[in-house]
Amino acid sequence: MMSLLVVGTVAFDKIETPFGKTDKILGGAATFIGMAASMLDVKTGIVSVIGDDFPDEHIDLMESKNLDLAGVEKVEGGKTFYWSGRYHNDMNSRDTLVTELNVLENFQPEVPVGWRKPEVLMLGNLHPLVQKSVLNQLEERPKLVILDTMNFWMDLTWDELMDVLKDVDVLTINDEEARQMSKEYSLVKAAKKILEMGPHTLIIKKGEHGALLFHENNVFFAPALPLEDVFDPTGAGDTFAGGFSGFLAKTKNYSFENMKRAIIYGSALASFTVEKFGTDRLAELTDEDLVERLDIFKSLTNFDIELD
Amino acid sequence: MMSLLVVGTVAFDKIETPFGKTDKILGGAATFIGMAASMLDVKTGIVSVIGDDFPDEHIDLMESKNLDLAGVEKVEGGKTFYWSGRYHNDMNSRDTLVTELNVLENFQPEVPVGWRKPEVLMLGNLHPLVQKSVLNQLEERPKLVILDTMNFWMDLTWDELMDVLKDVDVLTINDEEARQMSKEYSLVKAAKKILEMGPHTLIIKKGEHGALLFHENNVFFAPALPLEDVFDPTGAGDTFAGGFSGFLAKTKNYSFENMKRAIIYGSALASFTVEKFGTDRLAELTDEDLVERLDIFKSLTNFDIELD
Repeated sequence: MMSLLVVGTVAFDKIETPFGKTDKILGGAATFIGMAASMLDVKTGIVSVIGDDFPDEHIDLMESKNLDLAGVEKVEGGKTFYWSGRYHNDMNSRDTLVTELNVLENFQPEVPVGWRKPEVLMLGNLHPLVQKSVLNQLEERPKLVILDTMNFWMDLTWDELMDVLKDVDVLTINDEEARQMSKEYSLVKAAKKILEMGPHTLIIKKGEHGALLFHENNVFFAPALPLEDVFDPTGAGDTFAGGFSGFLAKTKNYSFENMKRAIIYGSALASFTVEKFGTDRLAELTDEDLVERLDIFKSLTNFDIELD
Repeated sequence: MMSLLVVGTVAFDKIETPFGKTDKILGGAATFIGMAASMLDVKTGIVSVIGDDFPDEHIDLMESKNLDLAGVEKVEGGKTFYWSGRYHNDMNSRDTLVTELNVLENFQPEVPVGWRKPEVLMLGNLHPLVQKSVLNQLEERPKLVILDTMNFWMDLTWDELMDVLKDVDVLTINDEEARQMSKEYSLVKAAKKILEMGPHTLIIKKGEHGALLFHENNVFFAPALPLEDVFDPTGAGDTFAGGFSGFLAKTKNYSFENMKRAIIYGSALASFTVEKFGTDRLAELTDEDLVERLDIFKSLTNFDIELD
């Protein structure tokens, strides 16, 4: 019954947007990934680290979503990873105000014994050596290994990133990162180069412009939902990864056709996350909400043209 | 048998891109619109103006596409409208090097007697008074009036633009222009405001990020084809408008569902235009090319998720 193992941060976020600001609220890549995957009703385990300042209410929320937190180490006397940022008016760019690594600085992930044969492994954005360490602890190679990363690791740990990428099936990065990684402006050319670095599948996230899925010579495009307001973009990319990985772990079908469905689930879930601060919208999300949103995605892009 | 009447520029373009440069080649909004519409096998008439420097070979090319040029006035001793521009490396921005209005400066469009009851009217990007004048010359209101415009007219002729917009069904503009017109950053909010200015349907063109179709509470998204290289973006927006208006004039079905198909035809045709300089790719385009490209658009966005 082990299905989806998620490695990533569990954090405090403090966020300012044109719509308001928060105190320190629940955040972190693994949090968003796990809460999104929980909507797919798939058994999900988290590997992460927190300090003893992490409140029980956050634990309770995550456990209420059936997330298995056995792999979340609590460091006594330690402080939880903390990030604070301010979004600009266009919501497409942001300034980081505070980054306190805290317990993340010496994080040595330990995969619980019961989680060493996951169906799908989702490596959230972390130091590539931490991602590699998790892979190395597994007793069997998962059916699918997905890795998310960012420009920071390309700048500072390129060799380690290239090393772990060799063991990865699906890479998720944004458009600017794809350009940096490949030194190509064209995303089609960038994808070709990146698919020679290890992963057989690449997802390029374009934020409000949707996401592209590349696999061999196939391309699929998933739109982002056009929204009146993006209230808080924090966690949208991780929510997307959670929906994508959760859907695949649930359906156990790794064909390109099924990855198309998975990317739509990811996009639909991400469209909720940006409606409220942090995890607020995911926390209250119902199955009915999700089905309705998936239907909107269908009508947003599907068309019928009869071609002879 | 009058179907699609197109008003717009017929011009000389001189283009520099990172891939090369041209001499003065055939360009202009009406040229691209007409050549795209001709792929839909719809009777198309052009209203425009040229100088006596306009070569017969360009006339021959346009007539070989079955474009009716009876409404194209040739000004003896006049020079054809001339634009020259240089695209930046990202191909998303460009500098205008030369704009010589020439015969366009005093353009008084005259709709030929045989073209005063068109099924569909496509008002290409021109002074709103010129667009209005064409509308006023028609003996019957067309089934559909589509208008394309740009920031230049919003800056200089706002009142005239608002006046002609009241008589228009479909407006096509790009994302920055939608934001300027509505003073809203969110394209969804922008669309709501713009749909109160007259048109019942709005198309927001986002270049490499595709196009959005808004009608009442319905939204449809058409992707742009991810390309290895955008060789020359000149005319892509007009080609899109030509495919869209041509498909609707051909099918005579103005439902939202059919507009979805029309926007896909427009996107598919635009994806050819950017493959070569100017009209070169449109000039050689075959029906087989188009059907194949439409099929790629289908596989690019269509997915099946069964929802209960």
